[in-house]
Amino acid sequence: MKSEIIAVGSEMLTPYRQDTNSLYLTEKFNELGVTVRFKTIVGDRRGDLVSAVRTALGRADIVAIMGGLGPTEDDLTREAVAEALSLTLRRDAAQVAALHARAAAWRITMPSNNLKQAEVLEGATILTNPNGSAPGQWIDTTFSGYRKLLMLIPGPPNECCPLFDAECLPRLRAVVPARSIAKRTLRAAMIPESQADKLLAPIYTEYKDIETTILAHAGDIQLTLLCAKANFDAAQQRVDELAERMEEALDDWLYSSDGETLEQIVLYYLGLRQATLAVAESCTGGMIAQRLTSVSGSSRSFLGGAVVYSNGLKSIFAGVPPELIDQKGAVSSEVAEALAKGIRQTTGATIGLGVTGVAGPNGGSESKPVGLVYIAVSDAQKTEVLERNFRGDRDRVRQWATQQALDLIRKRLM
Amino acid sequence: MKSEIIAVGSEMLTPYRQDTNSLYLTEKFNELGVTVRFKTIVGDRRGDLVSAVRTALGRADIVAIMGGLGPTEDDLTREAVAEALSLTLRRDAAQVAALHARAAAWRITMPSNNLKQAEVLEGATILTNPNGSAPGQWIDTTFSGYRKLLMLIPGPPNECCPLFDAECLPRLRAVVPARSIAKRTLRAAMIPESQADKLLAPIYTEYKDIETTILAHAGDIQLTLLCAKANFDAAQQRVDELAERMEEALDDWLYSSDGETLEQIVLYYLGLRQATLAVAESCTGGMIAQRLTSVSGSSRSFLGGAVVYSNGLKSIFAGVPPELIDQKGAVSSEVAEALAKGIRQTTGATIGLGVTGVAGPNGGSESKPVGLVYIAVSDAQKTEVLERNFRGDRDRVRQWATQQALDLIRKRLM
Repeated sequence: MKSEIIAVGSEMLTPYRQDTNSLYLTEKFNELGVTVRFKTIVGDRRGDLVSAVRTALGRADIVAIMGGLGPTEDDLTREAVAEALSLTLRRDAAQVAALHARAAAWRITMPSNNLKQAEVLEGATILTNPNGSAPGQWIDTTFSGYRKLLMLIPGPPNECCPLFDAECLPRLRAVVPARSIAKRTLRAAMIPESQADKLLAPIYTEYKDIETTILAHAGDIQLTLLCAKANFDAAQQRVDELAERMEEALDDWLYSSDGETLEQIVLYYLGLRQATLAVAESCTGGMIAQRLTSVSGSSRSFLGGAVVYSNGLKSIFAGVPPELIDQKGAVSSEVAEALAKGIRQTTGATIGLGVTGVAGPNGGSESKPVGLVYIAVSDAQKTEVLERNFRGDRDRVRQWATQQALDLIRKRLM
Repeated sequence: MKSEIIAVGSEMLTPYRQDTNSLYLTEKFNELGVTVRFKTIVGDRRGDLVSAVRTALGRADIVAIMGGLGPTEDDLTREAVAEALSLTLRRDAAQVAALHARAAAWRITMPSNNLKQAEVLEGATILTNPNGSAPGQWIDTTFSGYRKLLMLIPGPPNECCPLFDAECLPRLRAVVPARSIAKRTLRAAMIPESQADKLLAPIYTEYKDIETTILAHAGDIQLTLLCAKANFDAAQQRVDELAERMEEALDDWLYSSDGETLEQIVLYYLGLRQATLAVAESCTGGMIAQRLTSVSGSSRSFLGGAVVYSNGLKSIFAGVPPELIDQKGAVSSEVAEALAKGIRQTTGATIGLGVTGVAGPNGGSESKPVGLVYIAVSDAQKTEVLERNFRGDRDRVRQWATQQALDLIRKRLM
C-alpha cells in the first residue's frame, strides 16, 4: 500500500525549520511494508490545505496529516479535511468534558478557543493524546470509489510519535496485509563513499528483494538492509546472507554489524579490554569527549580529558614541553604524540589520545594548510601518530578529525 | 508570486535523509518577495514525478525542481517535466561536446549513459553548472492559460545552491516585481517560549507588514523580522522600529540584535573585557568547549579546559578535594563551585566555569533526579552557583545545561 505524509505548518515553509516527524512515521510505515510515495509540506492556509489533502487522497491509500490541530485560528486541519471529503464537523461532548478536566487539572480557566479541539469529523474515531490537548482522528472512508485511511495527528513531536505508535499502528496492522520485515544496519568508518559503493554495489544489486540504503556522513557510512517477506525467517535469512557478504567486503572498515555508533563501539571495546581512555583535544575542542559522553554509562571507561585549546593548557594538562611547541609548532606530529602520552600519564588512563590540527578557516599556511590534523594514540605498548588532510569548512574538518580519532582507538583495541 | 519547491529522490522518502536544499531556496525566494506555498518530496518514479509537477503547476507561479538530473536510469526529472508540459526533449550538440570535454579533462572515457544529461526541453534555456556534469534548465511557459516559471536544478547541494544563485536569481529578479527587503534577527536565551510569545505577540501583531518568525530550541529563541517594500529605507525603518520594541520587551534575555550565536556573543564580551575563560565540564562532557571552539578565532579568549567525567579527573584537573566529592556527591552545588574555582586556578583564566549534573537516563535518585544540573561561574570578585532542573532526554538535558552555562557567563560579563 502507498502512503503520503502531509506536514502542516507555515513555519515549515520558512528557511528556519524542517519537518522531522515524517522521518519517524516513514520508518514505522516501512516496517509495516507501506511505502511513502510523497511528502507534502503545506502552510496554515485553508485553501492550500484542502488542495494538499485532495491531491494526497488522489494518489495514496494511506494519508497521515500532522499538525494544525491546535486551538488557534491558524489550526485548520480539521476544517480542511472536512471540506476535502465533504464531511461535517460535530462538537464532541466527551472531548469538551476532557478539555475542561484538563484545564481544571492545570488550575486554569479553559480559553473558549480551546473548544475547537473538540470538533470531530463525521465518522471519525477519536485518537487519545496523553501528551496534549488536541486528540488525533482516524478516518476509514472512500474517495473516488477507493478505500482511504486518513490519520489526523498532532504536530509536536512529543505528541505525534507516541500517539502514532499507540493509536495508529495497531489500526494500520489490522488493515495492511501482514508481512514480516527483517532489518540490519551495518556501519563502516573512514572508507571513501565512492569506494564503498564500488565494493558493495555489485553485491547488493544481486538482492532485488532487499532494499539497501547507503547514508554517508563525514567518514561514516551507514548501510540499512530491509527485506519484507510473508515468512520472517526467510526474510531474516536473506538479510543476514547479504549482510555477511557486505561485512566481508568492508573488512576492517566495518565497525558495527547492528547499527551501533562508533562511540558505542569504542566504549564497548574499552569495557571488554578493561581499559580506560582520556583525550587531549586541541582543534576538535571537545567534540570527541562530547561524542563519547553522549552515550549513557560512558563513565565506566571514559575518564574525560582536556580541551587544550591554548598552548599553555597543552603544557599544564598534558605536560607538553613549551620548547617542543616552540620548535615544532602546536600543529605537529611531535605535539600530538606528546599530548597522547601526556594525557595518559596525567590521568592514569590505559589509553591516551591527542589531537591537534588547523580547523580553519584561518590559521593555515603553506606547510600547514587548513585541514591538516595529527592524531596520536598511546598505550603502555606504543604510541602511533596519523597525519591527515581533511577537506571542507571548520565544522567538517572537526567532524572528520573526530571520526578518525575514534576509529584509530577502535583499531588499537581490536 | 507563489512558488513550490519539489525535491526529487527516493532517498528522501526513507527514514534516513531529508531534503535540505529547500531551506536555502526558501530564503532566496523570500528575499525576492516570493512566498513558498508548498514543498513536495517525490521519489524517482516517472508517474509520481509527472503527478508532482502537474500538481505544482496548478497551484504555483514558480516551480523549482531539484534533483533527478544525473545520468542514471533513476534520473527522470527531464522526462517527467516533458510529459507534464507536453514538450519534446532534444539532444543538445553543445552539451554533448561539453560532456566529452569534461570527461577528457578527467582523463576518462565518457560513459554513454552520460549523454542523457545533454537532453534539453523544447524552449528551455540551459543553466550552466560549473560544479557537476548535469546542467540546469529554465522554462518560461504557460500552463492552463497562466504564465509559469520552471527551474530544473541539480540535486547535490554544492551544485544546487551556486547554480541557483548564478543562473536562477538574476532571471527571477527580471520577472518578479522589484521589492527591497529589510531583515533583522534577534536572539534571546533561557526565556520560556510561551513567555516570549506572551511578551512579543501583542507587539509584532501590530506590524502586519512585517513577517515575524519565532524559532525555539533548547533555551534559545530566534526571532526573524522580514519586511518588503518598494523603498528600502522605509522597510528598514519599520524593521528597526519593531526590533527596538522587541528588544526592550526581551530585556536582558536578549543577547543578540543581529543574529550572532550565544557563543559568538560570549567570545565577543570576553574580548571586550580582555578576559579569558576556562571550563570544567562533567555532565556536558565537552559540549560547552565544543560550541565555543566552533567559532573561528576563539583561541584569543577561550583557553580550553577539562572534561572531568570521572571523579578522579575532577581532583586532578580542577583540584576538587576527594573528600568534598565523598561528602556532597559529584552532583552538588559545592562540587560545581569547586570546579569553577579550581579550573580558574589551574589554567590562570580570568573566569572559570564548572558544570556537574545528572544527564540521565540512568544515575538519577529521589534527591538528585535526572535533569538536575549545577552551574558555577567564578572570577576574581565572586563565585555564583545556579541550580536547575532540566527536562527531556540525555541530549536535551546536556543542550539546556550548555546553553544555560554560556548565558550565565554572558550575564557575568555584561
